[in-house]
Order: sequence, then structure tokens, then C-alpha cells
Amino acid sequence: MKKFVNDPKNYVAEMLEGVALANPGALRYVPAYNLIMRADAPYADKVSIVQGSGSGHEPAHVMAVGKGMLDAACPGDVFAAPPMDYVYETAKLLNSPKGVLLLVNNYTGDRMAFDMGKEMAEADGVRCEILTINDDVAVQDSLYTVGRRGVAGNFFVIKAVGAASEQGADLDELLRIGRKVNDVTRTMGVALTACTPPAKGSPLFELGPDEMEFGVGIHGEPGRERRAMKAADEIVDDLLDAVVPDLPYESGDRVALMINGLGGTPVSELYILYRRAHQKLAERGITVGRSYVNEYCTSLDMAGASLTLVRLDDEIETLLTAPAEAAIRVF
Amino acid sequence: MKKFVNDPKNYVAEMLEGVALANPGALRYVPAYNLIMRADAPYADKVSIVQGSGSGHEPAHVMAVGKGMLDAACPGDVFAAPPMDYVYETAKLLNSPKGVLLLVNNYTGDRMAFDMGKEMAEADGVRCEILTINDDVAVQDSLYTVGRRGVAGNFFVIKAVGAASEQGADLDELLRIGRKVNDVTRTMGVALTACTPPAKGSPLFELGPDEMEFGVGIHGEPGRERRAMKAADEIVDDLLDAVVPDLPYESGDRVALMINGLGGTPVSELYILYRRAHQKLAERGITVGRSYVNEYCTSLDMAGASLTLVRLDDEIETLLTAPAEAAIRVF
Repeated sequence: MKKFVNDPKNYVAEMLEGVALANPGALRYVPAYNLIMRADAPYADKVSIVQGSGSGHEPAHVMAVGKGMLDAACPGDVFAAPPMDYVYETAKLLNSPKGVLLLVNNYTGDRMAFDMGKEMAEADGVRCEILTINDDVAVQDSLYTVGRRGVAGNFFVIKAVGAASEQGADLDELLRIGRKVNDVTRTMGVALTACTPPAKGSPLFELGPDEMEFGVGIHGEPGRERRAMKAADEIVDDLLDAVVPDLPYESGDRVALMINGLGGTPVSELYILYRRAHQKLAERGITVGRSYVNEYCTSLDMAGASLTLVRLDDEIETLLTAPAEAAIRVF
Repeated sequence: MKKFVNDPKNYVAEMLEGVALANPGALRYVPAYNLIMRADAPYADKVSIVQGSGSGHEPAHVMAVGKGMLDAACPGDVFAAPPMDYVYETAKLLNSPKGVLLLVNNYTGDRMAFDMGKEMAEADGVRCEILTINDDVAVQDSLYTVGRRGVAGNFFVIKAVGAASEQGADLDELLRIGRKVNDVTRTMGVALTACTPPAKGSPLFELGPDEMEFGVGIHGEPGRERRAMKAADEIVDDLLDAVVPDLPYESGDRVALMINGLGGTPVSELYILYRRAHQKLAERGITVGRSYVNEYCTSLDMAGASLTLVRLDDEIETLLTAPAEAAIRVF
């Protein structure tokens, strides 16, 4: 296994400790619950925004904690939902008079952990609501999911509700905004290689040298089909043919376009994908109003990418452009 | 070859077109010279900052163009210096009354292209100065270099002179600042896998399943030695043992610490490296004042990382914290 790792059992804990050490004063690490939180949260005048999910998708979600984004993230182990008591303890620690919004990517394990954690926290008097994200158009049900999976489009929900909560929106308003963003967000991904979980030490599945997994999940779940490799432009065209008709996005629409790297693909290749997507959307009469080309939600070291569209309106675009901070940053 | 690529001959051009499409109004692409420039550059009251170098190191340098960073980048093909006429035409296009600062990572091909391009531009009346970056402590000379190589520490030179030029510094002052930052910056990297140039279609060199290249160059040049894989913490300790004594960084120093991914390594692993480096520096009495954990200067899809230290003083830290924009961004 060619990885920077010590004991794989400590993979998540050591990563989280690194995130906290790199952001002194801004982020706090609570080892007992795999918890990264804003150091001065919760806030009396602000709903707390919390996300769980498995690890291995970084920067989602522990590196998305910061002002205008998440107030806390409590990940599980690699590709494992957080235990329900992590969710429970996190909700209690983040308890604000305005309540706690729990964001959940739609996987059965995550939903169970959050449903139970919410129930336990409510029994302690914490007002919680759950918002489920399910932007992946690849398959209807999946290996670990009833209904569609939640993948990179999650970033836009976090960004929008994070911004709105900073502006004082209450819990009901945040639910409305989050659902609205999720409802206009669609994603599909493709894997060129499998990923290698540190504890397994070998690739999670096999892909032939000329194969790709079209519609792959971020845990390596099967997508729509195993296909022969194609040129970058053809891959983009196929992704758009899956994503665009799904909402549908139509001529006259203004969208955010995200090309998200899955962990092992360099940003140079992501821009080659971006170019084609931007051009083909223009041919359909769809204007790209905001662009996102980077890693947002990965699958460990998987080579691959996903394409996300968000239909913009003034409300969503204003929230997406609001100031934000996070552990993942350039400067 | 598992890459998002069309015709490898168009790899750089399509990437650059993507960068421009994703940053309308902010960046402009001039295909004739592989040129990405700020759309409204040059500025009458500001020295223009330009970097060349080969492609394949993205986000360096085309995605580092923006306010407070580079005014333009004119890369060559993958791992190839820009032709001298690209440098010449770029210097002319970016000609400002305050002059043009040309940043060059220390490789023989790049230095030749920039020396000649500078001479040609000066014959046309453009005032140019060259600043050479050579932060890599791994080897004294290298496959394509006389003297030390320029690698990820380049980011800090760009950031500092980019900020100072926005504040009105003249060309002599920028040379002073850039040299000062380069003089207190040291880097060393390690490769866990080779990279695959698109035009070659196969890995540039062979690394056994239990081997790493300690001190690797960003074009896959040999480092200090081929070693057996080690745990992440041991790799960090070895990198620090090479980097810290070189300046040397000493007890009482305040530093910027960068863990730079080489393209195929997920950010989760980078934070595992960061954690150890931060802790071991603290044991040496060295305080990390600023942290950088991301991809800054890559080697295509190479799995690996480099560690950079910059000794901070008030002047450098103020420049590093100044506002900046670039194509590579999260929000």
C-alpha cells in the first residue's frame, strides 16, 4: 500500500488532529467523538450546522468546518457512518437556542445514525432537524442506499445554509433553503481507478486497464455500467447527457458547474473536463454563472471526477457568493 | 493510460482554455503563447509579475494568476520550459511603466528561455528583472538543473512579491523581497509512485511496490536515494532532518509550514503528515505561524508530498496574509 499512513486504525484520528493543529484558534478537535468544531461554537444567535458521514471524502466534511460553512463535523471511520452517540454528543455540544441542523448524505447507515442521534438529543431538549442530500443521478438505489446517493453536490447545500445561518435565518428557513438547493442540484461521477482504504491495504474493486466505472459512488459502489475508457470530451458529454435531462436544466438556465476530483486526479485534468462541460452547456443555452474546479468530495485516492450542476436563482447565488472560511484553503 | 485527456498534444491548450472559461472577466487566455493573464493587466502603477515553467505542476503556475499573485503565466508543454518567444511576447504584453519581474524556478531549460526572452524584451525597451527560485534541498545539482531545483516553495515567493507589487513596491524592492523569501525557504519531497505524462502514456520511472523516492524532483528526477516505504511519521521525521538543518531553522523561529501534495495523494494523508511535522517542529522549539496543506506544485498524478518551511518575520508574514485571488480556489 503506497500511502502516507501510520497504523491504519489511527488514520482518522491523526488526520483530525492535523486539521486542528493547522487551524489553531479557529477549529477544535474533540477526540472522543471524532469531532471538529468551530472553536467558539455554538452561537446564541445562530443555528448550528452539523454534518457527519464517513471519512475518506476529504475535504468533505471536516475541512468544510468554518464561518459561513459547517459549525461541526463528526465523521465515522473511513467509509463508515459516525456512531449514533457521536451525532448525539455533537448535537449537545453544538446546542444553540436557535437549534441544530443536521445535514446527512443519503446512505442508510448515515441516516440511521442521525435519526437515532437526533432522537437522543431531542430527549435532552436539543431542537434538531435533519436535511437529507441526494444529488447523485447515477442510480435510483445503491449498495448502501435506498433512493439516490448524496455526493459532491452536498457542498452547495452546506455553503447555502452556512451563509444563511450567519445572516440569522431560523431553523425552518434553513430547512427551506437547504431543500431548495438540494432540489436543483444533480451530480454524476466516473471512476478511472478504484480507491484503497488504509485498513484494507488493497484496491476496493478491480477496474481493467481500459475500463471505467460510469456513475460510480463515492465509496466505490457500482454505477450505471462498466465501460471502455473514452476521451475526456466524450466522458463529459456522457455525464451531461445523464445530468442535464434529470432536473431538467433547460435553455435560459443559469447554473453553477462543479468539476470535482475524486482524490487521485490532478487539477489539470479537471480543467480539461471543465472546458468541455462549459462549452456543451453553452450549446444547450445554459449559462455557467459560477465555476468550481477542485476537490470537494473525494473517495480516498480514486482517480476520477464528478460533474455537478446547480440551477441558480438570485437567492442561491447570493448565498453561494457570501464570505466563507474553512480548513481547506489556498492562502 | 487512465487519464481525462483527449489528444495529448492538446493537453495544455485545453487545460488553459478551461482555466479562462472558469474565470471570465478575471483571466484571459492568449493561445499563441500559452498565456494566462489577468484580463486587465498590465497596470500603470504596478510591476507585472510573470512566471513560466513547464506544465504538469498545476495549480503552479497558471492557476496562481490573479490579484495579489501572478499577473501572467506562460507555461511550456508538460515538463518543458516555455519557448523563449513565449517569455518575450508575455513580457511585452505585460509591459508596465514600473517594469516586469520574471520568476523562474531553477531548471536549466527555464533559465535559458527566460534569459533569452528577457534580452529580447529589453531590446524592445521593456524593463525586466529575473528572480530565480531554488528551494529544494534534496540534491545540489540534478538531471536538468545546475544548483538546487525550484519546487513548491515558489508559492511563497509569488505570494510575497504579488502582495508587495499591489502595494506599490518598485522592481528593486520586489527583487529584494523575492530573494529574501527564497533565502529563508527550504523544501524536500518524496514520491510514492511515478507520474504518467499524457504524451508518454506510461509511468516516467519505475518504483517497486515497497519503494519510495526520497528527495524526488517535480519532474520525477532522482532524489537522494531510493528507500523502502516507511510509516508516515518516519517519512516526516526524515524530511525534517533534511530540511531543518539546511537553513538552519532554529529554536525560537516562527515558520510557515507547507505540506504540498504532488497530485495523486489525497488531502487526508497530507494532514497526517502535517500533524507530525507540526509536533516535531514544536519539539525543536520552532513555532508554526502559518499552515498550508493542499496541492500547490504537483507532478501530474504522482502520489507523494513535499514539506516546505519558510522562516517568518513581520514583513514576510504581513505579505503572506495580504488578500489574494487565483483560479485555484474553494469558494
